[in-house]
Amino acid sequence: MSRTIIRYAEAGTPRWGVQFGRLIAPLQVDAPSTGELLSGHWELLWSVEAAQATVPLERVQLLPPVTRHQQFICQGVNYRSHIAESGLRVEDFPFNTIFTKAPSSITAADVPVVRPAHVQLLDYEIELGLVLRHPVPAGTQVGPDDLPRWLAGVTIVNDLSARDVQLPQGQFYKGKSYRGFGPVGPGLVLLTPQEWARWPDLHMRLTVNGQTRQDAYCTEMIHGPAATITELAALQDLLPGDLIATGTPAGCAARAPGKLAMFIVKHLISDAGKWRMFIGKGRANPAYLRPGDHISASIRTDDGTIDLGEQTTAITAP
Amino acid sequence: MSRTIIRYAEAGTPRWGVQFGRLIAPLQVDAPSTGELLSGHWELLWSVEAAQATVPLERVQLLPPVTRHQQFICQGVNYRSHIAESGLRVEDFPFNTIFTKAPSSITAADVPVVRPAHVQLLDYEIELGLVLRHPVPAGTQVGPDDLPRWLAGVTIVNDLSARDVQLPQGQFYKGKSYRGFGPVGPGLVLLTPQEWARWPDLHMRLTVNGQTRQDAYCTEMIHGPAATITELAALQDLLPGDLIATGTPAGCAARAPGKLAMFIVKHLISDAGKWRMFIGKGRANPAYLRPGDHISASIRTDDGTIDLGEQTTAITAP
Repeated sequence: MSRTIIRYAEAGTPRWGVQFGRLIAPLQVDAPSTGELLSGHWELLWSVEAAQATVPLERVQLLPPVTRHQQFICQGVNYRSHIAESGLRVEDFPFNTIFTKAPSSITAADVPVVRPAHVQLLDYEIELGLVLRHPVPAGTQVGPDDLPRWLAGVTIVNDLSARDVQLPQGQFYKGKSYRGFGPVGPGLVLLTPQEWARWPDLHMRLTVNGQTRQDAYCTEMIHGPAATITELAALQDLLPGDLIATGTPAGCAARAPGKLAMFIVKHLISDAGKWRMFIGKGRANPAYLRPGDHISASIRTDDGTIDLGEQTTAITAP
Repeated sequence: MSRTIIRYAEAGTPRWGVQFGRLIAPLQVDAPSTGELLSGHWELLWSVEAAQATVPLERVQLLPPVTRHQQFICQGVNYRSHIAESGLRVEDFPFNTIFTKAPSSITAADVPVVRPAHVQLLDYEIELGLVLRHPVPAGTQVGPDDLPRWLAGVTIVNDLSARDVQLPQGQFYKGKSYRGFGPVGPGLVLLTPQEWARWPDLHMRLTVNGQTRQDAYCTEMIHGPAATITELAALQDLLPGDLIATGTPAGCAARAPGKLAMFIVKHLISDAGKWRMFIGKGRANPAYLRPGDHISASIRTDDGTIDLGEQTTAITAP
């Protein structure tokens, strides 16, 4: 059965633990990074027992289970429903879109996130996060049954995005990398080999102020974990603890303009004018996040046997 | 006067040293990363004397002076001449384009680089690399005179790019992140405060098989180091040893199509067709890199007082 690894601070000192219900079993390990924890203490993580859980979750400060020493790799346009609402066509993306977020964007699952002063179109994106267990050698072919060999576990990622920076500037990195724009956790959920086979059943739900915005299953993913790790391993080094966010389904605040607006934009307006119009219309769209908004994000199987927990993120003013 | 930090392997063990002419003065330090070297041994780096230089450069294997533990942040479209040859307009980029390369793309300045089997349009981009000395706190305003406070030194970066992956896929990360696509070095050149003021005088030259392809001064840069570090510090954490590649001037193999071709592409051809045409035309362009080609890249002031050395990169088949 899966188990949830928690990183938390007790009297200011970061620690690792295993979660049992509302209690944490503290681990006596010296691992400054997620990679060092997974590489050096794998058997320990699975051998801790519920009787050792003595620290109430409520008493500690939650820290992100993926430390900032790791790579934060992201897939884009990886759900048909998100492509359609963005006014794009699946056939124009015959490839796996890859970009990164700055690791310093990573924050805990219950920490308020500041909307920077110049950002007007702040959007949410719930995503399944995959966390690497082992280095993946160049040229490794990863089949669907091989996931437990290379991956340690899964976690919730909210790929917060300043659309008014990300989209006009073309490259996604900047608009998605502000400090706090990567809530990760609450925990890192280690899966058994049998449970890895059920990743398509994971059900993502995100609400803003209690209103459902995103609600979809991971099975809709276009480029699944095995294909993505195979492609990334051919490109670059992947190390224990590295995080891959696998893309978001429909329901974001950013929507494609209607057909007439698209025609006008495409044929009559300069690039700069197009983005002024996009930002002006966006400011009137109440779906974008504003200070005072509360996001809740959960991922679990409908039978509850795999449960990644819940993020609760408040948006605040600078 | 500037001094050149070298990372090299002796009998398989990575070491740091200071270069004097064709000799290295070995350093007795335990610093697995560039950041740890710069944070922990700054005074030592400046106190080593020429008399301690005993190891001939020719006898050792050169390693990249920026280790793979660091962030590899890049600026795009940062030279007017490169924007023009790409068929773009400066006024459409009223911002500083930022993306990243995978740190595992970093390789030494004299190591052959494999053109991956599926890559047909391999291009070069000589760039001035800035290496951070200190963490830059959020909100730091960096003025032109403050560079020595935050930066340790400069190095040559070749931002090798698979245009047939980078451009059709939109996000630059993948097409620029293959292993070997980031030759860095040969050394990391630490500058004195007086020398930092001369970064605009640095003269970049890149040849392929002896033919000059790129030849420009850093003064043409649109978003200079002070403005870029100020903007990045507002966005994300910058740590000692992190590398910022500041963009490339004109002379790359990739060129914009002529006006008639642009009209046809814009109005008559689907996106997929556009990229097929781009790749087809590119294959006939002899300026792209092929196995057997030799790149040479140097950056120095014309008076020779600041000299970043020379990269010699052979392109090989898989």
